[in-house]
Amino acid sequence: MDYKTLAANVKADSFKMAALPREVRDKALEAIIAALRANSKAIFDANARDLVKAAEDSLPAPIQNRLKFDEHKLSDCISGMEDLKAMEDPLFRQLLKRELDEGLTLIKTTCPIGVIGVIFESRPDALVQISALCIKSGNCAILKGGSEAANTNRILFDTIYKAGVSAGLPENFALLIEDRAGIDELLKCHESVDLIIPRGSNQFVQYIMANSKIPVMGHADGVCHVYVDEDADIEKAVPIVIDSKTQYVAACNAAETLLVNRKIAAEFLPGLAQASGTSIEYRGDETVCNLISCKKAEAEDFETEYLDYILSIKIVDSTDEAIDHINHYGSHHTDCIITENADTASRFMANVDSAGVYQNCSTRFADGFRYGFGAEVGISTGKLHARGPVGLDGLVTYKYKLFGSGQIVADYASGASQFHFKDLK
Amino acid sequence: MDYKTLAANVKADSFKMAALPREVRDKALEAIIAALRANSKAIFDANARDLVKAAEDSLPAPIQNRLKFDEHKLSDCISGMEDLKAMEDPLFRQLLKRELDEGLTLIKTTCPIGVIGVIFESRPDALVQISALCIKSGNCAILKGGSEAANTNRILFDTIYKAGVSAGLPENFALLIEDRAGIDELLKCHESVDLIIPRGSNQFVQYIMANSKIPVMGHADGVCHVYVDEDADIEKAVPIVIDSKTQYVAACNAAETLLVNRKIAAEFLPGLAQASGTSIEYRGDETVCNLISCKKAEAEDFETEYLDYILSIKIVDSTDEAIDHINHYGSHHTDCIITENADTASRFMANVDSAGVYQNCSTRFADGFRYGFGAEVGISTGKLHARGPVGLDGLVTYKYKLFGSGQIVADYASGASQFHFKDLK
Repeated sequence: MDYKTLAANVKADSFKMAALPREVRDKALEAIIAALRANSKAIFDANARDLVKAAEDSLPAPIQNRLKFDEHKLSDCISGMEDLKAMEDPLFRQLLKRELDEGLTLIKTTCPIGVIGVIFESRPDALVQISALCIKSGNCAILKGGSEAANTNRILFDTIYKAGVSAGLPENFALLIEDRAGIDELLKCHESVDLIIPRGSNQFVQYIMANSKIPVMGHADGVCHVYVDEDADIEKAVPIVIDSKTQYVAACNAAETLLVNRKIAAEFLPGLAQASGTSIEYRGDETVCNLISCKKAEAEDFETEYLDYILSIKIVDSTDEAIDHINHYGSHHTDCIITENADTASRFMANVDSAGVYQNCSTRFADGFRYGFGAEVGISTGKLHARGPVGLDGLVTYKYKLFGSGQIVADYASGASQFHFKDLK
Repeated sequence: MDYKTLAANVKADSFKMAALPREVRDKALEAIIAALRANSKAIFDANARDLVKAAEDSLPAPIQNRLKFDEHKLSDCISGMEDLKAMEDPLFRQLLKRELDEGLTLIKTTCPIGVIGVIFESRPDALVQISALCIKSGNCAILKGGSEAANTNRILFDTIYKAGVSAGLPENFALLIEDRAGIDELLKCHESVDLIIPRGSNQFVQYIMANSKIPVMGHADGVCHVYVDEDADIEKAVPIVIDSKTQYVAACNAAETLLVNRKIAAEFLPGLAQASGTSIEYRGDETVCNLISCKKAEAEDFETEYLDYILSIKIVDSTDEAIDHINHYGSHHTDCIITENADTASRFMANVDSAGVYQNCSTRFADGFRYGFGAEVGISTGKLHARGPVGLDGLVTYKYKLFGSGQIVADYASGASQFHFKDLK
């Protein structure tokens, strides 16, 4: 069957999925947890085959590490699913109930988006988390994982699929795409797919955005900043900058540029350089290079997502200059100010146009788990719909139900009838 | 100055606009109301010039009617602005406050989207309403109205602009585009414009969507349905169908297709035809043509937005067939079931994938004013962000503020620190 037909089948079942009560969706999560536990040996075996192939292909160590799906990862996945199960139902929530007139009542109620296509990196735990988020939120999912995890993805998907259907989910509640060409087919399915969430390189996400009529939620890049204000506590600033840069350099929420207020630069930068040792390569202008060992920064450094142990540094004369720099060069992902001055922090947080604006903590906190969302399907740098880490809330929309008793608009236009808006509980 | 620079200036001022407290925005609305009143004679004079030109150009009567901006329209606009002023502030609303750990607090708070480009038809009252909605929600607006209203738009814009700036809004809080070529320039300003709301023909909206990287909110077309169920009350069904079709045929929420359950067709259709007289041209299959005077419907009739006194009719065997037809041929705008059976209505409303799902009332109620939103910037058939009539709620987004006291992620990764999610008031 071609992908267009497959996607249309998923779409058709998405209406059944949307109507399922909470109990069925939660029972499906329960069944999936049990099936993952029961199948764990076969899952680990499949993962071992992927890991052997990855080692043969000499994939970089961080990718091999991400690819690993062991007892520890499985137990993390299961505990995430248990949290999700316990969470309030995101569906059928009444957002508004308003009597427009006698016997004419408007109800705004949450419902699933429908069919979500998620394309994700070679991290098998992502497949489990995304499937679970989609089930809890009543969405059907079309999944495409990184090819390095092909064996693990296949068995995880089969396990989830069988357990889900046997627990009462519709036959086409989920679909796994296993070939690269399938992505291009998926991008053409704008009649069946309501949303695409791509995770991956800047170039990959840009490609998805440019090649589909389907709305895309996500981020192309993460050029995150830490700004060390003149009123910073240096004891906090040094570890926060090092953590933001190095705790996991390949993450989109890792810092790429450090902005330092001129008044504190001479005091702060040498301490930073001493604490980081040679682990970070710094790039800055002459002032920076006079204070610490660093390379000369080029203009493009400030728009580069290094995803590496490299940090560009710019000296600024004021908080406003820092804000302007971030709004101009940043990717509206996550940006942090280090300051003890609450007014300065407040101005920074109001004016920096990013999904996450932080004071005195690492940019690496920008994550669905760390926000207590149970899991995330991705992080959005767009300003519409969901922004920042996207959990259950970002996977639902709403519809307006209007219950009448024969009302027509002509009567309101002529003045024969009048609206009397009255919000009800 | 070119549009790219102009739009960048608006963008720069959007951060100032976002930080304005409610009082300043409400005072601006007040000042604009006063200025519109004070300038009313000049405004009506300018409108008279547009109307003379429209008559000379023999524009269709409904367009000339829409173009008119008289005492009545002004007073509607002003009363809408007064309602808006009285409404709760959509900004700075705390959607979540969660302690992630001791001294690490996450706050999710509403904020404006930023810069909104709105392209609207030749209806001068739209310019006033859209400006007011953007001011109340802290957004900067780039406006392009229909050229037939050029004189009226210019003086309305000038009046609003001057009153707004004198009341404390930033210098570039609004911009008027007066030439058609400006639209294409606007579409290129994806670095400065956060959202485009196009109102107009299907073809025009498709053009906008295909020619910009800026997110678009709106609807390309409105193929709305009324389904007359076997359990319909015919006394209600007849006037609702006639109102949905004819109360204003040029509207996107006018019905284009009537679905009739086979069991009730012979009873219902002749009564409908009798009540509508010759005012509606019906198009249907043989069964329909045997019951009432009608033309033969072609396949494309069911995907056509007539915007005229024409209604396609299809006989269906069940509610499920009606639902499938609507989900396949509809535009996810507004669809209505006429039935006295609550279970059938509930199934219809759960399964029809539209922004508005109605029971026993006219599709023409799909409108921001009629929902009690004060006004609307448009109606969205997309499922992300705002859906249905878009008022203030659809013009805001949110950001996450994280207040720390030196926390780094390495400590949570190592287990030295632990999250304890605690929602606070």
